[in-house]
Amino acid sequence: MHPLRLRLLLVLVLALFPAAAWSLARPRFPVPHPRTLPGLGANGVGDYEYETRYFRQRLDHFSFPGVGDEDEAAAFFQQRYLVGRRGGWAGPGGPIFFYCGNEGDIAWFAANSGLVWEAAPRFAALVVFAEHRYYGESMPFGSKAKAYNDSKSMAYLTAEQALADFAVLLTDLKKNLSAEASPVVLFGGSYGGMLAAWMRLKYPHIAVGALASSAPILQFEDIVPSTIFYDLVSDDFRRESLSCFLTIKDSWKVLYDQGNEQDGLLKLSKTFHLCQTLKTSDDLSDWLSSAYSYLAMVDYPIPSEFLMPLPANPIKEVCRNMDSQPEGASTLERIYAGVNVYYNYTGTVGCFDLNDDPHGMGGWDWQACTEMVMPMSYSEDRSMYPPYKFDYASYAEGCIKSYGVRPRPHWITTEFGGHNITMVLEKFGSNIIFFNGLLDPWSGGGVLKNISESVIAIVAPLGAHHIDLRPATPEDPDWLVSLRESELKIISGWLSDYYGARGPLFQPVAVKGSSAS
Amino acid sequence: MHPLRLRLLLVLVLALFPAAAWSLARPRFPVPHPRTLPGLGANGVGDYEYETRYFRQRLDHFSFPGVGDEDEAAAFFQQRYLVGRRGGWAGPGGPIFFYCGNEGDIAWFAANSGLVWEAAPRFAALVVFAEHRYYGESMPFGSKAKAYNDSKSMAYLTAEQALADFAVLLTDLKKNLSAEASPVVLFGGSYGGMLAAWMRLKYPHIAVGALASSAPILQFEDIVPSTIFYDLVSDDFRRESLSCFLTIKDSWKVLYDQGNEQDGLLKLSKTFHLCQTLKTSDDLSDWLSSAYSYLAMVDYPIPSEFLMPLPANPIKEVCRNMDSQPEGASTLERIYAGVNVYYNYTGTVGCFDLNDDPHGMGGWDWQACTEMVMPMSYSEDRSMYPPYKFDYASYAEGCIKSYGVRPRPHWITTEFGGHNITMVLEKFGSNIIFFNGLLDPWSGGGVLKNISESVIAIVAPLGAHHIDLRPATPEDPDWLVSLRESELKIISGWLSDYYGARGPLFQPVAVKGSSAS
Repeated sequence: MHPLRLRLLLVLVLALFPAAAWSLARPRFPVPHPRTLPGLGANGVGDYEYETRYFRQRLDHFSFPGVGDEDEAAAFFQQRYLVGRRGGWAGPGGPIFFYCGNEGDIAWFAANSGLVWEAAPRFAALVVFAEHRYYGESMPFGSKAKAYNDSKSMAYLTAEQALADFAVLLTDLKKNLSAEASPVVLFGGSYGGMLAAWMRLKYPHIAVGALASSAPILQFEDIVPSTIFYDLVSDDFRRESLSCFLTIKDSWKVLYDQGNEQDGLLKLSKTFHLCQTLKTSDDLSDWLSSAYSYLAMVDYPIPSEFLMPLPANPIKEVCRNMDSQPEGASTLERIYAGVNVYYNYTGTVGCFDLNDDPHGMGGWDWQACTEMVMPMSYSEDRSMYPPYKFDYASYAEGCIKSYGVRPRPHWITTEFGGHNITMVLEKFGSNIIFFNGLLDPWSGGGVLKNISESVIAIVAPLGAHHIDLRPATPEDPDWLVSLRESELKIISGWLSDYYGARGPLFQPVAVKGSSAS
Repeated sequence: MHPLRLRLLLVLVLALFPAAAWSLARPRFPVPHPRTLPGLGANGVGDYEYETRYFRQRLDHFSFPGVGDEDEAAAFFQQRYLVGRRGGWAGPGGPIFFYCGNEGDIAWFAANSGLVWEAAPRFAALVVFAEHRYYGESMPFGSKAKAYNDSKSMAYLTAEQALADFAVLLTDLKKNLSAEASPVVLFGGSYGGMLAAWMRLKYPHIAVGALASSAPILQFEDIVPSTIFYDLVSDDFRRESLSCFLTIKDSWKVLYDQGNEQDGLLKLSKTFHLCQTLKTSDDLSDWLSSAYSYLAMVDYPIPSEFLMPLPANPIKEVCRNMDSQPEGASTLERIYAGVNVYYNYTGTVGCFDLNDDPHGMGGWDWQACTEMVMPMSYSEDRSMYPPYKFDYASYAEGCIKSYGVRPRPHWITTEFGGHNITMVLEKFGSNIIFFNGLLDPWSGGGVLKNISESVIAIVAPLGAHHIDLRPATPEDPDWLVSLRESELKIISGWLSDYYGARGPLFQPVAVKGSSAS
């Protein structure tokens, strides 16, 4: 369950929509539940060889504890990182491909970021995947229970501290490998892509460039319209089927009306094959809204097991199921038929447990309640959701109630910028690729236009959330194969620039399929 | 007195030089003792009109306190800043000239940074001088006594926190002035120059460029030779007079030999007109070494009252005094005659109180013991000091003993870079001027060569510590007038670029003396 969202709903949204208490979904990036880690080696999830290592990392890079406090276990934690030499590293001086871990288990990101592994042998690059603090095994204070204990223990879960972790780790790693001269190329998807872009901007002395995939670095304050995320989700559905879009748009009122009837929650629970009877209609609308958001993020043209086992073009499949119900089917029966594709594509689920939120309450909720304040609204016409306007005061109240912490909504743009990004970066910074797939609702907060000759936007009209990073499969469409090659060609250029007169240490980028490993 | 330095001396340097315990001076940037603030309006110290304001600043930008802790006074402090509209500001959209305060009272930096004030009217710029946390009136915890209480209270005195202060202050200030579109130009001298350069690199969205004057951003780790600072001090003396240089070089052994004799310390105290009898020879050698370092920093071609009232070309004067003593004068009598120019140019001091260290123990010592670890050695031949090799272990031991804090010698280069700066920044970053005067020993850690078309080094062979920033005087040599014009012309270019098609809001840079105010 998701207490913050629930409380927000109960307190605020009810006030706005007294007739129908609409769910204010705060979308998260797609990160799997630890228990549902997809099987490796299947459907574009790679099984790569690496060594698991740990680095003694400072909990707070930006203050100096007294020597007495410094010895306490609390001042340091073990950061996990994975090191792979797929196809052999060129050795000291050879490139290092560094994945900036995001909000989850790093092994999962490693398994799902095939591009890094598949490209490495062609550049004779060392591969490093670094886990983000407070996720996976990289827990301060020795355990997740202790790390997530209260606002005091959570205080150091920030992007700035995570970037400093990466900087310190890379500096130490290069020294230990006598690889001070090795150029580092950063990779990251989603929040990890934001970190990769910010890392290149803040630590140009540590990395020569960054591939920031599906990184919504502009999804803050008023830089992009707060409605854009859910508008894009809605567009994805309308694109497949107008009737599907309209069914969903109509469904919210039907759902809440039914929920308000006598035995309405019981009826809803039966319609949706829930294991337990619903406590509120919000629980259901939240569950549905989550499915739509994630479906939009992973609307890949090939089957995937990124979050859930899903067919190719899953939204098309969802809509087909909704639309193909018998003529007399009710709106909610159609909805059920649709989301069943998402939550139960394998057909093995007997009933759905809404309490078993596969994305769990975790660090990201806390991050969203501190610095990662991404305003989200529902527009009236373009979206398939009931109108809702983001209200910061309510948002803050929810955070204070749930986590005892007050968000700082202006901090990310103060620290990392975002407003007028073209003007700011056109003569500043270099060597960043911003990839976005336009089906991905997070593309609304992404950089979609070239900023300069070397701060480049690559846009895939038919791509979804960081599809470029996913392991290659034989079914990959040509545009995907070709855009990956374009990215590697640009990265190759950064490395050539770096090596300059020394000549490339790595093999030239080969054409499709001719990996040099 | 300077406990850290003393302890370092007693513990370590004695071990290295058993015969003569040489002072290992850790040079500081020139900052005056609060009680000896020079009179305004005299000898190149300006008396500029401004309003004093305070901004509620967060003590720790990089963690999130719980809401309970947040309300405590300890989580915030009042940062002082000065706002001037000399000659009139163009208003919202017009430029803002922002001085990045360094380790001292901001009013003193305002009085001594005439260039900012004198240039402002020509650009119709608003002038802001922001005080650095833990200095002047900008004290966390309500008072200097509480702020400087222990390593816990000092923990947030870091350059990263100070830069974040500037970023938050500027963002808020621009919003309050409806001046979000105003381009900000950063200024700073010495440590303030380091902050200005780093601020442009880390916060390009907040400032369009930086004039970093005498900013030794390379004085870390092994980027420049650790002997360079004292070699340059020595060069300044040898340049004026070889015999002066040799007298100083010989004096240390004489001083310590005499100090070791019976009644030697008493004799030394008399020779040097000290108010109290010396407790150790180190106190004296330290006092002398300080004078030489500061003399080299402020070896200006015009009279100044930057640290002490001094004549033009003070080293020339010191050496003339040493060399012109009667033939039978002893080495130490000559030394006394020399440093008397520095410590008593006005001739009003009856005796010298070595305990009254005019530069006091303060925040900078703490900063030097945490992140600002600048290794300093004495070379054998080029320097006029006894050979000494920087020893990090001893340095750290001194810091732990004095402040209970362990330095992080690799942190500054990890956070801000420095190694291979040309390669790193030639295609990254823009709009920074690094000014250095080659007489200034801090120029050894400065950027002395152009990095790119817009990351530019301006070098004045006859200039000393941030002479460009000092208020203009009628005696200024032509090269100084002309280099200031060059700097303003470059800044004018940044602003033109920024305003682009809108056309400049400000008056073109005028020729010497024709200020538009």
